[in-house]
Amino acid sequence: MRVALGIAYRGDGYNGWQSQRDGRTVQDALEAALAAFVAAPVRTVCAGRTDAGVHALNQVVHLDTAVEREAFSWVRGTNRYLPEDIAVQWAQAVPDDFHARNHARGRRYAYVLRESVARPALETGLVGWSFRPLDGEAMRAAALHLVGTHDFSALRSSECQAASPIKELRSVTITRRGAYWRFDFDGSAFLHHMIRNIMGCLVAIGQGRHPPGWMAEVIASRSRDAAAPTFSPAGLYFLGPYYDAALGIAEHTPAFDWLPA
Amino acid sequence: MRVALGIAYRGDGYNGWQSQRDGRTVQDALEAALAAFVAAPVRTVCAGRTDAGVHALNQVVHLDTAVEREAFSWVRGTNRYLPEDIAVQWAQAVPDDFHARNHARGRRYAYVLRESVARPALETGLVGWSFRPLDGEAMRAAALHLVGTHDFSALRSSECQAASPIKELRSVTITRRGAYWRFDFDGSAFLHHMIRNIMGCLVAIGQGRHPPGWMAEVIASRSRDAAAPTFSPAGLYFLGPYYDAALGIAEHTPAFDWLPA
Repeated sequence: MRVALGIAYRGDGYNGWQSQRDGRTVQDALEAALAAFVAAPVRTVCAGRTDAGVHALNQVVHLDTAVEREAFSWVRGTNRYLPEDIAVQWAQAVPDDFHARNHARGRRYAYVLRESVARPALETGLVGWSFRPLDGEAMRAAALHLVGTHDFSALRSSECQAASPIKELRSVTITRRGAYWRFDFDGSAFLHHMIRNIMGCLVAIGQGRHPPGWMAEVIASRSRDAAAPTFSPAGLYFLGPYYDAALGIAEHTPAFDWLPA
Repeated sequence: MRVALGIAYRGDGYNGWQSQRDGRTVQDALEAALAAFVAAPVRTVCAGRTDAGVHALNQVVHLDTAVEREAFSWVRGTNRYLPEDIAVQWAQAVPDDFHARNHARGRRYAYVLRESVARPALETGLVGWSFRPLDGEAMRAAALHLVGTHDFSALRSSECQAASPIKELRSVTITRRGAYWRFDFDGSAFLHHMIRNIMGCLVAIGQGRHPPGWMAEVIASRSRDAAAPTFSPAGLYFLGPYYDAALGIAEHTPAFDWLPA
């Protein structure tokens, strides 16, 4: 049978999602825990590979297994074998042809950034930081150039393995609460380092180092050299994929605000 | 001259605030960084000693020094020598008789607790956790018994060194947002483990294991054995002390909501 799981993790202790020969990765930790729970090797396919240091609130994976368990047994049983910074949040039996990556209609990410003269301490690893004040209107004007279907070659890493640099960015929303800025991204799929490269550009524009229209120039250049440096992974959260309702994957809106105002 | 500093730290890597012979403590780290910055030994006096694992958004300290620096130089210069989970947030010259602890009119703490069937991962070390649903009305009714001036012997640790167990708890406010509960405490001063012991009782009441009136019985017993076990330090935040306006300590409302809803 095929099972889907929703996984939350804090990424700063890991070399990203994907298994590596020499790597401490989230996938390795999850598959080891699943294997311990079902007493058999388990392979998982995820909805969105995250970089080193990037967090996830609702990474979705699927796996095939001969073991039949109640949904919540998958959660509790697997969590027993996971380190404390990774935890299965939900589990659900799915049709045998469900595919966590190929069926995702889109993915949502958020970037959280603190603007303050003093550096963060409590939130270290969980937020980006700007020492300089940011201009929200300039960043919002720049973000309008990002929305739509574009060749994002200028904003992909040189190591990106995606077949095509053309992706659809459906929305970029920029909000602020106190010292914290939040940037929400909704898109078909994202290239390697794409959001961190976008953040580098938006912060440069927010700090007044480039005008909002520079964002359009960067995209049009299709050259990585035109963009700002890749921004820190610390504030980046994979909020999760979304699927057509017909697939029957329950909506699992991740709780994201554990420190109320 | 005397200088006051506001310090933020993530407490789960430290054996609490206070210097210990064998200890990795926040005070040790801060005093080492200050000594490196001013090239002389520095001793600090804090507004509220925090336990192992407890966080602070605005711990206030004072120190005496022969070194004259701009306020922001204290922030940046000290932070250069601090580990990433501790950072000075502000600095201010104060009168020579200002005392961070003795002059505090009161202290505020918050406890953040996640209610969910699956355990936290991303927020590990930063929130408490209740697997069982909590009854907010029951906890609020219980909290009314805490407010006022009481002998809190039942809620202090056996290692508490305070001269008197009689303290004034000025308010307890319980709010909820999504999966996260927040408990705010405002009091004259707090005994060792007092809030963690209160949290143990409130959670027991919220889970239906005792009625709200049990809180009054626990207090009246003045016996530690009557109360619930000490709750986890993970969700406890020292929001900071407050002073009479005449002392001229600027209000530094700590930013607390880095993950907007």
